[in-house]
Amino acid sequence: RYFRRSKDCPDLDLGIGDDAAVIRSGNERLAITTDTLVEGVHFEVGSDAHCLGHKALAVNLSDLAAMGAEPRWALLALTMPSVDTNWLAAFCDGFFRLADYHKVDLIGGDTTRGALTITVQLIGTLAEDRALCRHNAQVGDGIYVTGRIADSALVALFADTLKAYKQSYEQCTARLMRPTARVAEGIILARYATAAIDISDGILKDLSRILSASDVGAEIEIDDIPTIPEIKQCCPTLELLLKALIYGEDYELLFTLKDEYIAVVKQAYAASATPFTRIGTIDETRVLKCRWQSKPVVLPERLGYDHFT
Amino acid sequence: RYFRRSKDCPDLDLGIGDDAAVIRSGNERLAITTDTLVEGVHFEVGSDAHCLGHKALAVNLSDLAAMGAEPRWALLALTMPSVDTNWLAAFCDGFFRLADYHKVDLIGGDTTRGALTITVQLIGTLAEDRALCRHNAQVGDGIYVTGRIADSALVALFADTLKAYKQSYEQCTARLMRPTARVAEGIILARYATAAIDISDGILKDLSRILSASDVGAEIEIDDIPTIPEIKQCCPTLELLLKALIYGEDYELLFTLKDEYIAVVKQAYAASATPFTRIGTIDETRVLKCRWQSKPVVLPERLGYDHFT
Repeated sequence: RYFRRSKDCPDLDLGIGDDAAVIRSGNERLAITTDTLVEGVHFEVGSDAHCLGHKALAVNLSDLAAMGAEPRWALLALTMPSVDTNWLAAFCDGFFRLADYHKVDLIGGDTTRGALTITVQLIGTLAEDRALCRHNAQVGDGIYVTGRIADSALVALFADTLKAYKQSYEQCTARLMRPTARVAEGIILARYATAAIDISDGILKDLSRILSASDVGAEIEIDDIPTIPEIKQCCPTLELLLKALIYGEDYELLFTLKDEYIAVVKQAYAASATPFTRIGTIDETRVLKCRWQSKPVVLPERLGYDHFT
Repeated sequence: RYFRRSKDCPDLDLGIGDDAAVIRSGNERLAITTDTLVEGVHFEVGSDAHCLGHKALAVNLSDLAAMGAEPRWALLALTMPSVDTNWLAAFCDGFFRLADYHKVDLIGGDTTRGALTITVQLIGTLAEDRALCRHNAQVGDGIYVTGRIADSALVALFADTLKAYKQSYEQCTARLMRPTARVAEGIILARYATAAIDISDGILKDLSRILSASDVGAEIEIDDIPTIPEIKQCCPTLELLLKALIYGEDYELLFTLKDEYIAVVKQAYAASATPFTRIGTIDETRVLKCRWQSKPVVLPERLGYDHFT
């Protein structure tokens, strides 16, 4: 690892390695994150500009959601091959609609010439004297996810089959193109969850990050992972099902919770209408184990999206 | 202009359009900036990685210097075609040496695959209840620059001639490859200057930004702009001299100052050993006028670096 945090940094609560960094500024704590989308890598050449504007902000909102922060200020570094005013107008409309919804202000940026590359930096405030992080999951905690997993994967990998189910196809496409960051849910979790992460690189890979950081293990019931029902048709074998589950781009929150807080979180979540589902339990084994149809599953070596393979 | 600042943002002191944005976080004010360097646009393919690491941070430090902020926290979004460990080690060494010198902590980032593109976001604190900005230059103020102008231009445009002067060639090359941001000088100026900007896009273009923002004009003596003496050999005509002056990449501070503060700023600058030189005066004409060898100069239409031409 080439990027290190400096040795002594009294203002820094969490450094590189969590979804966002936390700094102390005067009497307030700020969570700060940055995410880059590259054409041809994170989105196809010729992708819809309005969706890109939305998504570039949404993936950063999701990082702050996983910290339990309230998003406030954004910077946009936009590298483009040329100035295409139609493209730019659509991109900005997508960006600002989502920014306005979350009351995020664009406070600065830089536009440069080059291959289409979109970097957003997002800063949020932390209300309580704690942030959600990855390293505090404890043995016995339940493991939960918000919303639904693998919608993006089904569109990206199994569109031919999914197209037969028009409504689900459209829903899943919308989720891939315009992900919803679980911002309000993250703020609630900051008070109750022991650990959280946003699922961008695949549920198993992101869960394994919580397990490593917390020095614990987990047992997961694959059947309990919430998905659309048509996943059975799209992925008739366990191998295909795992392929869909580890695809990533879910932008749901994966979190760990003590049983005593289930009721209060359920009540708080009723307002946002976002379901959350228990998919397993933290244990002391330091190993990630999955079961499917009551049988242990041999996990693939590659648990999710790797940024350089 | 497609990027707008939101209509009501009580926490935002300065929005898009200055060198950095200023936000209010609790009882503190933060200055935030972002700058991107793209291979083939801002630096040549195959540029030295150590220099790039330095420069990517330095150009952002220069933006904060122009606000009078003390740099504190950085994020690095690095897009690379592949992971080249030697390149990365050199880049990080260049970055961290400068970061350590300025006591800046790298608190987060994102590494992605794609054309080499380096985006740094830098956050600093503002000590006084004011920031340096562009819009407050007043009629009668002197116009000053720190250090020396056109060193980068002479290497980039007139290397063949400059190479005959070995020491100057080496000095100017170092200034192009490893620019020094005038951080300490900016912090001093925050108390005294009426307006400031860092010179990245050319002295005349950046000055014209101060003039527009402040709704004033200026008269500049080209002969008073501090340069290396060999600029006479490199640029024997006014046309070539202007070409060198408007090239940019100086990363010096251009600022306006009332006469009553000259002595106190001179004294404060003695510690940093950075000279500052008066090059003209703000007037009420709303026009930028330049004189050279006691004659008025007809300025070129293109006053400096444009990010998209």
